[in-house]
Amino acid sequence: MHVTLPDGKQLDLPEKATALDAARAIGPRLAQDALAASANGDLVDLMTPLPEGASVSLITKKNPADAAPVFRHSLGHVMSQAVGEFYRARGYGPEAVKRGVGPAIENGWYQDFDLPEPLREEDLPEIERIMREIIARELPFSRREVSKEEALAQFAHDPYKGELIRDLSGDEPITLYQQGDYVDLCRGPHFPNTGRLPTAFKLMSTSGAYWRGNEKNPILQRVYGVAFATGKELDEYLHNLEEARRRDHRRLGKELELFTIDPLVGKGLPLWLPNGTILREELTRFLREQQFQRGYQGVVTPNIGNLDLWRTSGHYQNYSDSNFSPITVDDEQYMLKPMNCPFHIRIYASKPRSYRDLPVRLAEFGTVYRYEQSGELNGLTRVRGFTQDDAHLFTRPDQLKKEFLDTLDLTVLVLRTFGLTDVRFRVGTRDPGDSKYVGSEENWNTAEAQIIEATEEVGLPYTVEPGDAAFYGPKLDFVVKDVLGREWQLGTIQVDYNLPERFDITYTGEDGQDHRPVMIHRAPFGSLERFVGILIEHYGGDFPLWLAPRQIVLIPIADRHNAYAETLAGEFKSAGLRAEVDDSTNRMNAKVRNAELAKIPVMLVVGDREEERREVSVRERTPEGHKERKGVPFDELLAELQERYRTRI
Amino acid sequence: MHVTLPDGKQLDLPEKATALDAARAIGPRLAQDALAASANGDLVDLMTPLPEGASVSLITKKNPADAAPVFRHSLGHVMSQAVGEFYRARGYGPEAVKRGVGPAIENGWYQDFDLPEPLREEDLPEIERIMREIIARELPFSRREVSKEEALAQFAHDPYKGELIRDLSGDEPITLYQQGDYVDLCRGPHFPNTGRLPTAFKLMSTSGAYWRGNEKNPILQRVYGVAFATGKELDEYLHNLEEARRRDHRRLGKELELFTIDPLVGKGLPLWLPNGTILREELTRFLREQQFQRGYQGVVTPNIGNLDLWRTSGHYQNYSDSNFSPITVDDEQYMLKPMNCPFHIRIYASKPRSYRDLPVRLAEFGTVYRYEQSGELNGLTRVRGFTQDDAHLFTRPDQLKKEFLDTLDLTVLVLRTFGLTDVRFRVGTRDPGDSKYVGSEENWNTAEAQIIEATEEVGLPYTVEPGDAAFYGPKLDFVVKDVLGREWQLGTIQVDYNLPERFDITYTGEDGQDHRPVMIHRAPFGSLERFVGILIEHYGGDFPLWLAPRQIVLIPIADRHNAYAETLAGEFKSAGLRAEVDDSTNRMNAKVRNAELAKIPVMLVVGDREEERREVSVRERTPEGHKERKGVPFDELLAELQERYRTRI
Repeated sequence: MHVTLPDGKQLDLPEKATALDAARAIGPRLAQDALAASANGDLVDLMTPLPEGASVSLITKKNPADAAPVFRHSLGHVMSQAVGEFYRARGYGPEAVKRGVGPAIENGWYQDFDLPEPLREEDLPEIERIMREIIARELPFSRREVSKEEALAQFAHDPYKGELIRDLSGDEPITLYQQGDYVDLCRGPHFPNTGRLPTAFKLMSTSGAYWRGNEKNPILQRVYGVAFATGKELDEYLHNLEEARRRDHRRLGKELELFTIDPLVGKGLPLWLPNGTILREELTRFLREQQFQRGYQGVVTPNIGNLDLWRTSGHYQNYSDSNFSPITVDDEQYMLKPMNCPFHIRIYASKPRSYRDLPVRLAEFGTVYRYEQSGELNGLTRVRGFTQDDAHLFTRPDQLKKEFLDTLDLTVLVLRTFGLTDVRFRVGTRDPGDSKYVGSEENWNTAEAQIIEATEEVGLPYTVEPGDAAFYGPKLDFVVKDVLGREWQLGTIQVDYNLPERFDITYTGEDGQDHRPVMIHRAPFGSLERFVGILIEHYGGDFPLWLAPRQIVLIPIADRHNAYAETLAGEFKSAGLRAEVDDSTNRMNAKVRNAELAKIPVMLVVGDREEERREVSVRERTPEGHKERKGVPFDELLAELQERYRTRI
Repeated sequence: MHVTLPDGKQLDLPEKATALDAARAIGPRLAQDALAASANGDLVDLMTPLPEGASVSLITKKNPADAAPVFRHSLGHVMSQAVGEFYRARGYGPEAVKRGVGPAIENGWYQDFDLPEPLREEDLPEIERIMREIIARELPFSRREVSKEEALAQFAHDPYKGELIRDLSGDEPITLYQQGDYVDLCRGPHFPNTGRLPTAFKLMSTSGAYWRGNEKNPILQRVYGVAFATGKELDEYLHNLEEARRRDHRRLGKELELFTIDPLVGKGLPLWLPNGTILREELTRFLREQQFQRGYQGVVTPNIGNLDLWRTSGHYQNYSDSNFSPITVDDEQYMLKPMNCPFHIRIYASKPRSYRDLPVRLAEFGTVYRYEQSGELNGLTRVRGFTQDDAHLFTRPDQLKKEFLDTLDLTVLVLRTFGLTDVRFRVGTRDPGDSKYVGSEENWNTAEAQIIEATEEVGLPYTVEPGDAAFYGPKLDFVVKDVLGREWQLGTIQVDYNLPERFDITYTGEDGQDHRPVMIHRAPFGSLERFVGILIEHYGGDFPLWLAPRQIVLIPIADRHNAYAETLAGEFKSAGLRAEVDDSTNRMNAKVRNAELAKIPVMLVVGDREEERREVSVRERTPEGHKERKGVPFDELLAELQERYRTRI
């Protein structure tokens, strides 16, 4: 047989040769360094026969990312072996531990066990220790193909493996992998030797999991591990995990009193507490100002609408899973609105429009309701009621590019304002082979070209994804990376030829004839709920001054300074800034600590000296730590903070 | 028999004496001037026997308000007679006109007719002319008591009168009134003589009305008239009526593009158009600023809530007529919220509260839904979905007066801002004899005293109405008079001992024990919908600068000035002012007229001279007419308008 190497060279090998054979044929050094291989793009291990004619490249520690799924899987087997040894050391027989499935997953693996007694979280370090021992033993992984009968005999003691084997189709060979005395039913691939596995791993947690995900089956104990090629990557992963926990918007939402979800009120229906309401209002005010400058017009529409609206829009038929049940009023049926579009369309249709009136840009912070399974609900990021920063632009076809560019520009400005500078776009266009699309060929061609041109002009990375358009028009999704490197799909900008048709809206063209406008749907935040949820995590609760629900705390050194502090707080409030006085009986240090916990960005300490001179001592939270300034004239600080608030810095 | 006069004197009169007999006994002059009388507080005419021992005072043209219901009723008979003569002059027999009921109503009367051919609006002046003739004839009104049989014989030709007579109980005497040859079945009272009736009347309109209000009965033609003691009053009434028509918020709402109600969206569910949305947002911003200064905290809560909330509040049971039908979600039931209270209470309960934390003032512009019969719906003033400028104050009992006073003060400030200075208050207290009230005797006493003291301190007229309190606490309603003298009941401020109990909310007192807070419900606007509806009529659409949806229009004299106008509009917009350029092809005068029709308060005309000098020519709408200023430096005007906008003048 022969295989092809990445440089195009052909290699002649004996029948049933493995990647290790290929590596040996290239050179003894590569044979030693090789960890796994890629054959025709599939990951394979060194023990598996290569297919005839395959394109083969060998993976060494120089390309660790390619090897990661393999070593994670192998570490799963090592853990499984270690768990066996753990129970044998506790007097159980070798067949006492039974095993469900154990795949590699993102960043690590898991393995399900049926154990003679449950594994406790505090046992995990001991399992890790045994795993390190097994790695130190440098046990080779071996692979062998067996018949169904042989496989069943091998796992005669394990009903789970038995069930899996009986369910195998028989089309593919059944393979067993073994290191030391541990044998598992497995498709592979694996590293050649436990000694080659990285030691940058950690067992994270255990949980219960029904055998085969079916709640009628017995519950097994699932153990999770993570692993990386280097300790640095593991540390970074654990750090980010801890950061994510620390920044969890549900935890911070409670600690900073931003929102609460109350089972008596309803699932997935957040109550915005005073601090969270300030965040919402600042976001709303910010976007409203931007929209005012860009010629948007605000509208307000009800939270329910006649069901016929949703029948006309097609929403009722097409998204029935997310609709709340209808409300009967007299002889009519109404529904909680899942979207604002039909209302804006009816406003567009409320008077005749001429080509000179377009574009019409109608914006609303509209609260919509969509049913979600209760298991899917999550803090602010997955809810049943949310407020979209929605707008619909009704444009002439020749205005589409300009309007699209402006919505893109607004989106980028919005995201930059929150330090979300790592943005990428996905432009979804038609699949030319598909016939589901509504609207004329000519319109689609123009729209796609205009969107791509507009996106190009913004100068940020983008990809074009043919076939990703909605049936009613091309669209653009934007994805941002937060400070932890996590990607969030935020909003979309969608072009729509469908609803103008369904609602039969028109404008009078220069030619005196009726024409169909094109609609753009857009929401830079997506929803206030989701966006605030993301912002809480992005900032870790340390909001910039303009967003901080509690901006300024005045800390009197002694009770006799309370009146001075109150005077200053009153002046801040008259200037529109959010200031409060900590006139509790706490000592000054405790007051500072409390302000730190509440993440108030500006702390002003006032005592005799400050009061005499109408000054304050400033302690500010900054991304780098703290900034202290003593003896700052109050009026100077007031002007400074007002300006920072106004300019949202 | 004898009667008592207002000065306490007793008058001896023969049996069955009438008020005319009493007047004659006093003096011939009074007998001539008397129009009607009051007997034991009831209006009676001069022809009706007085009850033995009655307190009697005579009504002359010196107290016209007391006489108005009587002369309106008598004019109804005169009209009825005139209609008969009208048809006789057209060849119909005297029995061709049949009559339903004809009572006096506010400002006038109506009379239902079954006519041989319909009366047209253009016939009304002729009827009026005949009425004046009948008045000139100085026909005396005579009264006589008859038996049922006599009455039936009298109206043998008129099935409606016949039905009324047969339905009479027989407990009271049946009376007929007659002037000239016109006889009607009537309880009275009437003026002594048609010659004494005022001629300041007008027939307003006709409409259809089912006999006895039952749609299975034949439809009669109803003719409306109005009448006043003097021509001045009539003119004022007609002027106000015309003004009310001119100011009708439904008409102006359409003309100024403030809102629309779209049957496809739903009855009683206004769509706020861009101009109306600006009004809403300005009102919201204004109140939010006031509330910020007064220590309110904003919250946002969902539009639906678990039905159990409304069961706990008692709303579900007690106001079932106004509830929308429940929405089933999984195994729970939800309802559109008819009020925000339970949500705010759950926010209060979301963390422990100490006596030091109170008062807690939670405010929300909360959109609520209450079912109304479709026949009751009216523009913005009677809707099914509306946004309350709601707040709930959770106070200690000892804070109630101060908080109540502050809400009153805020209310008065709000109303004054809109020139609604004619305000009166009604304090509703307990009926001490009634046992329906919840909360302790002591709390009620304190609360009532505190509310009355607080109201007293505001220094505006108020009345105390025992028995007007809600069962859950005392309250204060405020009623304003608009520029047309029409009274509007706006909001209420209510003290509530009930919901804190039902939701079992507490705070920890200084004594370490749990105590019950008192709640205040308040909404100075009442609802944005209703308040905007009233404001539209109050201002007649001529909003002050800060509220005007369209504040400034720039009118270029020729096309070559468009660019300059656009530059200025851009500067206004950057300063947050709403400015637009009329760059239509209209001539300047037409542009000014269009701006007048759109009620834009500031028109700026720009031509060569203005452009050269960076000036504008200002034409402003003012309550007195117009104010013109030529050659105003642009920057000066910008600063002036910014200041006026900021200070809401």
